Amino acid sequence: MGKSELTRQKITETALASFRERGYEQTTLRLIAGEAGISVGNAYYYFPTKNHLVQELYLRVQTEHRQNVAAALRSTTDFASRLEIALLAGLDALAPYHDSAPGFLQAAISPTSAVNPFGPDSAAPREMAIALFRDVVDGSSNTIPAALREQLPELLWMAFMGLALYWVYDASPDQRRSRRLASRASRLLGSLIPLTRLPFVKGPLAELLDMVREARL
Amino acid sequence: MGKSELTRQKITETALASFRERGYEQTTLRLIAGEAGISVGNAYYYFPTKNHLVQELYLRVQTEHRQNVAAALRSTTDFASRLEIALLAGLDALAPYHDSAPGFLQAAISPTSAVNPFGPDSAAPREMAIALFRDVVDGSSNTIPAALREQLPELLWMAFMGLALYWVYDASPDQRRSRRLASRASRLLGSLIPLTRLPFVKGPLAELLDMVREARL
Repeated sequence: MGKSELTRQKITETALASFRERGYEQTTLRLIAGEAGISVGNAYYYFPTKNHLVQELYLRVQTEHRQNVAAALRSTTDFASRLEIALLAGLDALAPYHDSAPGFLQAAISPTSAVNPFGPDSAAPREMAIALFRDVVDGSSNTIPAALREQLPELLWMAFMGLALYWVYDASPDQRRSRRLASRASRLLGSLIPLTRLPFVKGPLAELLDMVREARL
Repeated sequence: MGKSELTRQKITETALASFRERGYEQTTLRLIAGEAGISVGNAYYYFPTKNHLVQELYLRVQTEHRQNVAAALRSTTDFASRLEIALLAGLDALAPYHDSAPGFLQAAISPTSAVNPFGPDSAAPREMAIALFRDVVDGSSNTIPAALREQLPELLWMAFMGLALYWVYDASPDQRRSRRLASRASRLLGSLIPLTRLPFVKGPLAELLDMVREARL
């Protein structure tokens, strides 16, 4: 690893620790530079804005999410089990940031926020997340209609964003209510998959998928 | 109307106009008092915090929402039509605030925010909203299983909150994409109602309702 990459990594680690401990609002690049023993000018060279640090955080959470599921996903081809693994692993990856999550939510929720996870700057971590849910679907041996199979990864990612929103509000110890919701929702979705082949379910399902496609922002 | 009530109303109208034009962040009680021709001390007597003004805004939007649906709901007993009326009327009531909606979302989304619509200070407007969706359900002649009928008003209110979140992000002219989504989702939900009586749908539906009940924060 070159000196430049080491400096970059040092700033990133310091920033992530600060995000966990101080939260989004109180973390400044000036503070990070001081803690990392780097000049402010040098730190700005690597991370011109706080948004650049937040994108590192998003990438880190995605990388951990991916690492958390890799082995477990090889253990089953059952859709509900795979989804449950993915959702719980996602909550595990987020867990260290629970205390600072309200501040991040506040900073990220505005449609014009640079750190909005639906925004252009967050394309890389977002695509990693959707790819993870694509793996969940692709490795499932359940019979899933082709049209649903195609849209399911993005739908599951959106469901995970909804779960993450719930998790921010979850004050139960270790956010166990969010974990329970993730498990129950996975099993419920799994039990709905066989119904999608029924003739009178096909129409509403096609309409649901088309409605979601049209509504994509 | 007494002098006190007139003063209160004057402050409220001035505040709502300011919220629409300046947005949440830039609106201060000091500014409102000046525009309303009232001393700051007097304004603080009626509205000790900005949150008190926001609660007035929430109540106003709910009152408009209720007024917008009253006549139309008497025209039909079809669930999907009633739901569509309620959702579109809700978007109509929000429409004047679309430009300032990102700022409100940012201020309201944190679990600890005083202006969080799920928080204790917003109980009155929230109950008005749920009551409106209860009217939608109660006036429907469709056969709806009792357990679903009981939980449906709160579920529809949550769906409307989701729609409102989508609407904040909706940059289409007159937020017509949100309106289209509201119409399609209403018709889709309406088409699902008859399916709830099918034997193999009953189990997943009961599980869904129980899961939502347990997950209530």
